[in-house]
Amino acid sequence: MITMRNWILPEHISDLLPPEARRVETLRRAMLDLAAGFGYELVLPPLIEYVDSLLPPADAALELKTFKLTDQLSGRQLGLRADITPQVARIDAHLLNRQGVARLCYAGSTVHALPDGILSSREPLQLGAEIYGFAGVAADVEVVELMRECLRLAGIEQVHLDIGHIGLFLALADAAALSGERREAVFRAIQQKDLPSLAALVAGLPAPLAQGLAALPTLYGGAEVLAAAEQRLPALPPITAALAALRDLTEALAARGIVPHYDLSELRSGYYHTGLVFAAYAEGWANAVARGGRYDHVGERFGRPRPATGFSVDLKELSRRLAPALARRAILAPDRLDPALADAIRALRSAGETVVVRLGEVIDVEELHADRELVERGGQWQVVPLGA
Amino acid sequence: MITMRNWILPEHISDLLPPEARRVETLRRAMLDLAAGFGYELVLPPLIEYVDSLLPPADAALELKTFKLTDQLSGRQLGLRADITPQVARIDAHLLNRQGVARLCYAGSTVHALPDGILSSREPLQLGAEIYGFAGVAADVEVVELMRECLRLAGIEQVHLDIGHIGLFLALADAAALSGERREAVFRAIQQKDLPSLAALVAGLPAPLAQGLAALPTLYGGAEVLAAAEQRLPALPPITAALAALRDLTEALAARGIVPHYDLSELRSGYYHTGLVFAAYAEGWANAVARGGRYDHVGERFGRPRPATGFSVDLKELSRRLAPALARRAILAPDRLDPALADAIRALRSAGETVVVRLGEVIDVEELHADRELVERGGQWQVVPLGA
Repeated sequence: MITMRNWILPEHISDLLPPEARRVETLRRAMLDLAAGFGYELVLPPLIEYVDSLLPPADAALELKTFKLTDQLSGRQLGLRADITPQVARIDAHLLNRQGVARLCYAGSTVHALPDGILSSREPLQLGAEIYGFAGVAADVEVVELMRECLRLAGIEQVHLDIGHIGLFLALADAAALSGERREAVFRAIQQKDLPSLAALVAGLPAPLAQGLAALPTLYGGAEVLAAAEQRLPALPPITAALAALRDLTEALAARGIVPHYDLSELRSGYYHTGLVFAAYAEGWANAVARGGRYDHVGERFGRPRPATGFSVDLKELSRRLAPALARRAILAPDRLDPALADAIRALRSAGETVVVRLGEVIDVEELHADRELVERGGQWQVVPLGA
Repeated sequence: MITMRNWILPEHISDLLPPEARRVETLRRAMLDLAAGFGYELVLPPLIEYVDSLLPPADAALELKTFKLTDQLSGRQLGLRADITPQVARIDAHLLNRQGVARLCYAGSTVHALPDGILSSREPLQLGAEIYGFAGVAADVEVVELMRECLRLAGIEQVHLDIGHIGLFLALADAAALSGERREAVFRAIQQKDLPSLAALVAGLPAPLAQGLAALPTLYGGAEVLAAAEQRLPALPPITAALAALRDLTEALAARGIVPHYDLSELRSGYYHTGLVFAAYAEGWANAVARGGRYDHVGERFGRPRPATGFSVDLKELSRRLAPALARRAILAPDRLDPALADAIRALRSAGETVVVRLGEVIDVEELHADRELVERGGQWQVVPLGA
């Protein structure tokens, strides 16, 4: 079976067959309904857009993942979306144009030209929720709470929450006037916790900045990290602000019974992230089960920079471990032209039953999940156990 | 607003904003649940596949609509699906491999490189249901019934059902050994009911075949069409069989209170259709609101030709005329750290209420659809009318 699938479909692309598709659909509905209960309104942006709108400027990682197409109508370059958040930011900035806070959620397929990892799908089914127009930590807390409840729906109760702040790296790199390839290299070395390369790369920078950059990959762990960061990072205003935001978030989460961990070298969330970032890990899952954070400037190129925070998950990935949904037990009905039978079938279906009409000679009761049948007894159509 | 949307998005591509997205989601769920009640199992094929698997052979119309991409992993050509039915046929043939009847349904985006018409979206949200493994007319009847009930969910009660049979044209064209461009030209002339061109094109063919082809565009209307077709078309075995199938379907539909119309030149459904085809029209809708038919050989290139019949609709199109969903009325809650408040909010959300936490200074009660609020009265959190 696996061989055939691979033979037919491109690598890292697969079909969702009935039991799995049903699980994904059930989880999708439950998460969207949960978000609706928090006041998040559904938006459905398109799969294709002009590349210029789809990609945040200079986002090399997202650009590499995005398939390009030529629009036969305009001759311009289109992209097949590899992420949905930039589209939702465009909707907030351009279409809704609200003065107050906007809460938006979405669920849809994205396509990656290259897979994230050897086991990753190139077609994640991304579901997310986002708050626009509020800079305070209360928005981040709400997003983390909603994320945690979404993960509960996927059966993930115990979550290890890592938080970080992209602003620390950005402040140090800006103060050190790092740009171009060197900035990229420092970014990668921090992300990969590659201390020797990092030491070589920052050599020659002013001491407080070099020490600060070199310290980032070592600043991970529990509550002690924030105090250590204060000691080891220079007191530049954006750094002071970032550490204050981390402390505020910590306090607000603690009040809700959530004790986060810290990873100040966590930059991976940061295609377009600008501030607080977070990632949820769970036992038995190799990768983060959910990610999110601040991307306060993402609406800027649409003419309306609004504070923004949100999270997203991959429904395909999350539904993989869900217990197989109990198949709805079906009632078999004969293929006979009888108004009384038609009425009986209609009534059962209206009552939420699945009624499958027998077609053909081969009836596989298991495949149809049938356990009962409609039979005529004394001029009445009745549901009886199969074979009774 | 319209101008901005056009400025940002490619032509024939649009976002679905909150009220519309919610309508589409509601209709999507209702139709999938309806299909589940008939025993149709959900499958979710991928957005991209190798072009060879995605396109039925020599299907020029579908090929023109399909965006092509290069797979960086394999170097092979990928297609962005413009239709889902060929994928479902692949799943039936290759993955499920059932001996008995398989009923499958799906809902997902498709992308058209070129729009079908000046008002058509290039990103229809296709929902459909299909029966594999049963050649009898009972399968077509079930599909038509399910289609009719799906249209009811979209508020379309009165449907004008056109049926036709691609086999008539195929039989005549094969008997006349029409091929290549001439066959294409005859096909187009019939479809466009262009009688003068058709007469010129069939001149010189054996008289019964020329007369038969010339007659097709005139064979539309009520029950009289079948008798006329018997008179005017040559009694080739596939023609006799096709007319018998039309009669059988007519009879079975009549027993269910459905009186179809006929259009024996209706070939438009026929990317891959091979036999009976049908299209549902409704007052006030320029185009068909649903289409379907037989595509008995579509699994052949996957090594397993099974009889197949089904229908599909565009959820975006159908939800357009639905009455705006009543926005769920929300309850505003203060952003305060109080375990009793958190409990009250959780309880309300569990009971199906939307509770929106106040963030920021600007609260637009209309935008939030809020009509109540949580307030503390005598040490208790209570829901009261807004502003009470």
